[in-house]
Amino acid sequence: MTIPYKQQMLPIEKVFRDPVHNYIHVQHQVILDLINSREVQRLRRIHQLGTSSFTFHGAEHTRFSHSLGVYEIARRICDIFERNFPIRKIGADGWDDSERLVVLCAALLHDIGHGAYSHTFEHIFQTNHEAITVDIITSPSTEVYQILNKIEEGFPEKVASVITKEYPNPQVVQMISSQIDADRMDYLLRDAYFTGTEYGTFDITRILRLVRPYKDGICFAINGMHAVEDYIVSRYQMYVQVYFHPSSRGMEVILQHLLNRAKELYPKNKDWFRQHSQLLVPFLEDDFQLIDYIRLDDGVLNTYFNHWLDATDPILNDLAKRFLNRKPLKSASFKPEVDAELIQILRNDVEKVGYNSKYYTAINSSFDLPYDFYRPKSNKHRTQIELQQKDGSLVELSLVSQLVAALAGQSQGDNRFYFPREMLHNQQQVNYDLFSATYESFLSHIHNGALQ
Amino acid sequence: MTIPYKQQMLPIEKVFRDPVHNYIHVQHQVILDLINSREVQRLRRIHQLGTSSFTFHGAEHTRFSHSLGVYEIARRICDIFERNFPIRKIGADGWDDSERLVVLCAALLHDIGHGAYSHTFEHIFQTNHEAITVDIITSPSTEVYQILNKIEEGFPEKVASVITKEYPNPQVVQMISSQIDADRMDYLLRDAYFTGTEYGTFDITRILRLVRPYKDGICFAINGMHAVEDYIVSRYQMYVQVYFHPSSRGMEVILQHLLNRAKELYPKNKDWFRQHSQLLVPFLEDDFQLIDYIRLDDGVLNTYFNHWLDATDPILNDLAKRFLNRKPLKSASFKPEVDAELIQILRNDVEKVGYNSKYYTAINSSFDLPYDFYRPKSNKHRTQIELQQKDGSLVELSLVSQLVAALAGQSQGDNRFYFPREMLHNQQQVNYDLFSATYESFLSHIHNGALQ
Amino acid sequence: MTIPYKQQMLPIEKVFRDPVHNYIHVQHQVILDLINSREVQRLRRIHQLGTSSFTFHGAEHTRFSHSLGVYEIARRICDIFERNFPIRKIGADGWDDSERLVVLCAALLHDIGHGAYSHTFEHIFQTNHEAITVDIITSPSTEVYQILNKIEEGFPEKVASVITKEYPNPQVVQMISSQIDADRMDYLLRDAYFTGTEYGTFDITRILRLVRPYKDGICFAINGMHAVEDYIVSRYQMYVQVYFHPSSRGMEVILQHLLNRAKELYPKNKDWFRQHSQLLVPFLEDDFQLIDYIRLDDGVLNTYFNHWLDATDPILNDLAKRFLNRKPLKSASFKPEVDAELIQILRNDVEKVGYNSKYYTAINSSFDLPYDFYRPKSNKHRTQIELQQKDGSLVELSLVSQLVAALAGQSQGDNRFYFPREMLHNQQQVNYDLFSATYESFLSHIHNGALQ
Amino acid sequence: MTIPYKQQMLPIEKVFRDPVHNYIHVQHQVILDLINSREVQRLRRIHQLGTSSFTFHGAEHTRFSHSLGVYEIARRICDIFERNFPIRKIGADGWDDSERLVVLCAALLHDIGHGAYSHTFEHIFQTNHEAITVDIITSPSTEVYQILNKIEEGFPEKVASVITKEYPNPQVVQMISSQIDADRMDYLLRDAYFTGTEYGTFDITRILRLVRPYKDGICFAINGMHAVEDYIVSRYQMYVQVYFHPSSRGMEVILQHLLNRAKELYPKNKDWFRQHSQLLVPFLEDDFQLIDYIRLDDGVLNTYFNHWLDATDPILNDLAKRFLNRKPLKSASFKPEVDAELIQILRNDVEKVGYNSKYYTAINSSFDLPYDFYRPKSNKHRTQIELQQKDGSLVELSLVSQLVAALAGQSQGDNRFYFPREMLHNQQQVNYDLFSATYESFLSHIHNGALQ
Repeated sequence: MTIPYKQQMLPIEKVFRDPVHNYIHVQHQVILDLINSREVQRLRRIHQLGTSSFTFHGAEHTRFSHSLGVYEIARRICDIFERNFPIRKIGADGWDDSERLVVLCAALLHDIGHGAYSHTFEHIFQTNHEAITVDIITSPSTEVYQILNKIEEGFPEKVASVITKEYPNPQVVQMISSQIDADRMDYLLRDAYFTGTEYGTFDITRILRLVRPYKDGICFAINGMHAVEDYIVSRYQMYVQVYFHPSSRGMEVILQHLLNRAKELYPKNKDWFRQHSQLLVPFLEDDFQLIDYIRLDDGVLNTYFNHWLDATDPILNDLAKRFLNRKPLKSASFKPEVDAELIQILRNDVEKVGYNSKYYTAINSSFDLPYDFYRPKSNKHRTQIELQQKDGSLVELSLVSQLVAALAGQSQGDNRFYFPREMLHNQQQVNYDLFSATYESFLSHIHNGALQ
Repeated sequence: MTIPYKQQMLPIEKVFRDPVHNYIHVQHQVILDLINSREVQRLRRIHQLGTSSFTFHGAEHTRFSHSLGVYEIARRICDIFERNFPIRKIGADGWDDSERLVVLCAALLHDIGHGAYSHTFEHIFQTNHEAITVDIITSPSTEVYQILNKIEEGFPEKVASVITKEYPNPQVVQMISSQIDADRMDYLLRDAYFTGTEYGTFDITRILRLVRPYKDGICFAINGMHAVEDYIVSRYQMYVQVYFHPSSRGMEVILQHLLNRAKELYPKNKDWFRQHSQLLVPFLEDDFQLIDYIRLDDGVLNTYFNHWLDATDPILNDLAKRFLNRKPLKSASFKPEVDAELIQILRNDVEKVGYNSKYYTAINSSFDLPYDFYRPKSNKHRTQIELQQKDGSLVELSLVSQLVAALAGQSQGDNRFYFPREMLHNQQQVNYDLFSATYESFLSHIHNGALQ
Repeated sequence: MTIPYKQQMLPIEKVFRDPVHNYIHVQHQVILDLINSREVQRLRRIHQLGTSSFTFHGAEHTRFSHSLGVYEIARRICDIFERNFPIRKIGADGWDDSERLVVLCAALLHDIGHGAYSHTFEHIFQTNHEAITVDIITSPSTEVYQILNKIEEGFPEKVASVITKEYPNPQVVQMISSQIDADRMDYLLRDAYFTGTEYGTFDITRILRLVRPYKDGICFAINGMHAVEDYIVSRYQMYVQVYFHPSSRGMEVILQHLLNRAKELYPKNKDWFRQHSQLLVPFLEDDFQLIDYIRLDDGVLNTYFNHWLDATDPILNDLAKRFLNRKPLKSASFKPEVDAELIQILRNDVEKVGYNSKYYTAINSSFDLPYDFYRPKSNKHRTQIELQQKDGSLVELSLVSQLVAALAGQSQGDNRFYFPREMLHNQQQVNYDLFSATYESFLSHIHNGALQ
Repeated sequence: MTIPYKQQMLPIEKVFRDPVHNYIHVQHQVILDLINSREVQRLRRIHQLGTSSFTFHGAEHTRFSHSLGVYEIARRICDIFERNFPIRKIGADGWDDSERLVVLCAALLHDIGHGAYSHTFEHIFQTNHEAITVDIITSPSTEVYQILNKIEEGFPEKVASVITKEYPNPQVVQMISSQIDADRMDYLLRDAYFTGTEYGTFDITRILRLVRPYKDGICFAINGMHAVEDYIVSRYQMYVQVYFHPSSRGMEVILQHLLNRAKELYPKNKDWFRQHSQLLVPFLEDDFQLIDYIRLDDGVLNTYFNHWLDATDPILNDLAKRFLNRKPLKSASFKPEVDAELIQILRNDVEKVGYNSKYYTAINSSFDLPYDFYRPKSNKHRTQIELQQKDGSLVELSLVSQLVAALAGQSQGDNRFYFPREMLHNQQQVNYDLFSATYESFLSHIHNGALQ
């Protein structure tokens, strides 16, 4: 008798050693097959934190290990739900464990559409990693699709609908995507571990003990309110201290300019780019297929930047060198109310000392909302975090936590103006030069690290 | 008045956040300049552990962070030596802190010659990372050379002589290269941290408190004998549990065969390889310069393997796919006394089911000596670990430690025969096929994971 | 030639292995002598967290290890100050390292006056651990005094004046006693370590890199604002999650009632108490000397409670048993506006089922201020935390941190009403008893863990 | 319908926060009741490591937390056994989960008979903690007995027979007591955590994944041989570095002499001892009951030592002071072959400078066997560690591990001669005194810390 694929369990559980969760436990043949698929293995070549490793040199971890981590957290939640909250009747609060496989697959695959230097690349080549995630899951050409479809017809689409939040069971959706989901829990812990900072650590064992399924989603036992609050604060700290670090953004700006320069040069230099960056051509042509996207990874882009060191265009050449050799632009923060004219004056100064200000200055604004409650009128509303009282009723988190109330709905981050390090020349330097008046004028607009 | 370059200290110490040592402290302008050099930045694109990350997915750290770590350990040793053992008169036991800068530079640069998938690459293209390290340090074309030479003429050669162990002060040489040096201490701790195993951890704070300079090198206070012993055991454990892991070696074998296949195909397909792997051409031609070597990195090789997915040669194509998608060969261990004929029989079986045994089987032998005492007659003798007694006299480590005595001079590791996973087909599988007799014959030679 | 005592340095630094700071480094003979004194050794018998270990069983650490930890943090701050901010001229910002010894002594001795179950004991026997700290330091009969006085005449008084905040140099005072001092930093880390919670951890290495001496005290470099903010949040979390835990307070209430009962019984049972609790007699008599106080410790009180198991008074006997065998009172929280009449109703219910409500109920209110800025009109004002900008000017922490602003001036904690566990009897229990109507009435006033 | 006591599960699992295992999970009402019993709560007042906390100040943890830890490890092993190796038929390899409750009770109670400063106390007052453990479990007067007996008649005796190794199922016995049992695993990890050393850490998650039930006991999957080997080495390291530390033994020697002195003085000072040490009297009388034993704890002994500071006997008084104020005897190691005459000479020197050598010198020999294989002829044979190969056959650990082979059957430890610190007086001291010739003679026999 053949066991249906979806029920095939590994005779001996397979484990992957993981520095964050100790072990990742794989029990289903399906999950093992997905991990071994080409599309998931590709994530080994996509860094989790993009240019952040230029600031935090330990942060060289990839989306592969993050994906395993999200899977593992989801698996642990399912275990706890199955043991403590098995559903008793339809409509009751509780967990129906037949949802487990769709959760595990969605958890493992939620980032499958991320590409080389994702966020920057998307912006410039008009790709969208969420749409591509759905594409990879539902395109018959991918190994991922073939595995999922073996489970049962329509299963790939079910998994994709979890990613798009259209899956009917809100518990499943919220486990993968909400303000306190398996994805965020893993990346905070993982990024904290690999950067070596401690801000992102929170008490995940305790959080997992507090999570409860109820009919409209997942919530947390109120006696653990402070553990949830601590998670929100950790998230906030990682944003302001790691993800928005000015130096990482100074490298990101270089990367943006470099790719933009390539795009600008391409029409008149097609052969050269084909020779030196073959897998990038479909994107420079703005005519790419899923398979083109899947072949890119961080190393491919870096290799082409390496090839571009031979370019005759001085800007392409110089930006490639700056990126490979880590020469970030420097920056000063500014308030939203800062005069556009001032920025223009500073750009002019940069031009005066010989830089093309289009490619050597930038405005970079990084903001995030550490937490928000549900705002019916907002166009991008969020699933708020609910706490469950002893009598079963729910309370929204910011109503009982002063700390969360202070952060709720408050974007965190800053605006920064980027410019070449050379602009920071100052009188203490011995060889004062031709442009001293310009440097002096430039510096006069910066005080305590901010534009004035 | 200008401060000489070698004495320029940063007005405020610069730190790099490091998950292993918490912070890397940089105090000299020289060190900061070296870190910012092209050749050191290149190490960000060379993984520390090669194919090990295919087994331990967290182990995606690079030689860049390791190099900073070795520098930091060396710096801490210098601090301790300077505070506790300043030299009193020439020839006395003690530390002359004017050696500090040469130590720090050698520590930071000791791995600068490592290249893409170093160990495998060297073997196939006849490069040598140690020779290249010396080359990079002493070639006027490198940024590293230019920085070192600004310190004083001849300084690059001094640093290189530490690497080659020809530097006159044995304390300096042993800090960088001995059986318990800054290099080994960092990589054990770092590899343990990133793999998430605990075998490599030892008590570095205690070891650093025990280290002493004496006139012929460095030694350790005998009251800390057990801490040193524990370090040796950790090293042994990392070898047998991490570095020699059969799956990682199963990927290494794929990589070797893949590069060998390219080499074999190259003469008749020069244009195709030039088009698809331009930076590798000098090596396929066996005519390369230092600059060619420096441009390679792990990502460049991976990108070319990606390009090779378009190759028409089925072996090149298939091996590239196996490498990128992590399909390691499987293996069985064997004793040295195993019959060469048996291996041949197994190879024949592999051929029978359709594989080219040259590219789909391999012998891989990995061995290391966790510790050895000085053996005057050995052609590759080692600096033994000395313990200092209260009265100043020295005792060699294995004389006082039973554990170390048990490991001393004993190579650890094993011989493995590699073959395609398909050979493990067995009767429990439903669709038994054409080759069942061959599979059965093949399997009959393997018992408890070893060849019989 | 004799080296003056205050300058006698240990030929080899002595270390104490510490799980929180790795090593405690002792360099002065004075410090070693103080550690070896009777009064400091006594702290080995005083637990750091009183009744908290009844809730967090790992928290069995003592004030001895905390005192070493505070000393070590102070020592590290001195090292950083000496290296980076040596004073250049009188009145300038910077650190005068001749203050080091007074800082180290004050750090080590700041808790020397703590006694057996300090906070509870003080309340009942009208002692004051801060006054006793000063007493121990300045009384010629103590070993601590004798050591300090050997340094120079008047030195004990100097150290004491740091504790009382009268010492003229505000840097010294603030290192030992401010809203972010060596004392708080150590106890947060240490209590987090031993309880096994993670809430109290913050990035101490980073905080120590940020601290700066200025002429009116100590401040922190503004670029590390978020690290300081994180410390405040950690402190808040430890209060609400560990220090104010309802079960620990349920044991504290037992302890208070037990000691009160002894005090009440003493006048008519003097001989019995002398026989069974000899070292406590001076306190029951309200006529004690410093030496009497020093002889008490947690174990002495516990031993007497053990002796009291033989008492004929049923309340003394029962409360002693409850304390030794960990039978805490249970509790419900209540809002400040709760009706005093309601509390009285509940007390009556407790009396009805047979308990003396004086000894078996209690109100316990625990509150703390995680942070506050300077309020000139407050009668207990605090030294606010100052951040130093690049140009040297200072900003108060809550002005730049939303999180801290949300906590500033807000007392955290709650009021709880304590009662015997038996009152929680409910209908699900099989053997319903005589008092069921009373239990039901009692429970009807509690909803979601709070009085209604 | 009433659920039988043994099957009563807590509606919501109760957890205890534990720094070593993160959480201790309690699921049975029986276990919760046992934890709350008087005899188990008493363990909160018995330190795990006796005098070791005088050397490693963090090591103030108690047998209570250790007992919870052993319970938790046993529980985890049962979970793994139940999930992966449920028994299929009688006599087959596998685990019968109806054994769970007896395992959990035995694990929790295995140390219940430990008393105040156990090892020292036993030696002097002829008690035996293992016999008392059995007594407490099987005496109808104890709360522990009453709880166990409620499960079913004869259950206390079943639990006791696990402790005495007479229980018929060897799997159960070996989980609690063998060379790699829940007890040893917990104390190595716990003692390492609280001392702050790292020697005792081993990879417990991995070990728990490797353990297998077979019909004659428990064994370990051979592919994890190195993890088991690492555990043996950790155990060895804890012995030589922590448990046998010379300073802790210097305090233990004081404690022995102190208790011996009391015993010697008692017959002529009965009233005084009754007044100052009432709970110790039954032991001084050599006529004690179980209840007398249970009332003692570390704090009781310390309190009596505190009372003894008022003794007129100078030796009792002085030794009590030395113990409370941590003034250990100093020591020198010696080889077994050292001449008894030499020891006598040294004792005479100690007498010469005014010390009673009976109370101020001592021989202390501490040895342990980190591992041994089964030796049929040995009178105290050990259950050897078995590794299971793929085909199910077993191999004894030392046959496949060089490291374990080096330790097997080798006692580790040393012999030390203890004497007052004053004997170490030396010429560098300024005030050389009357006894200089004696000191010099004494010191002439010690070289590099050992007797000559």
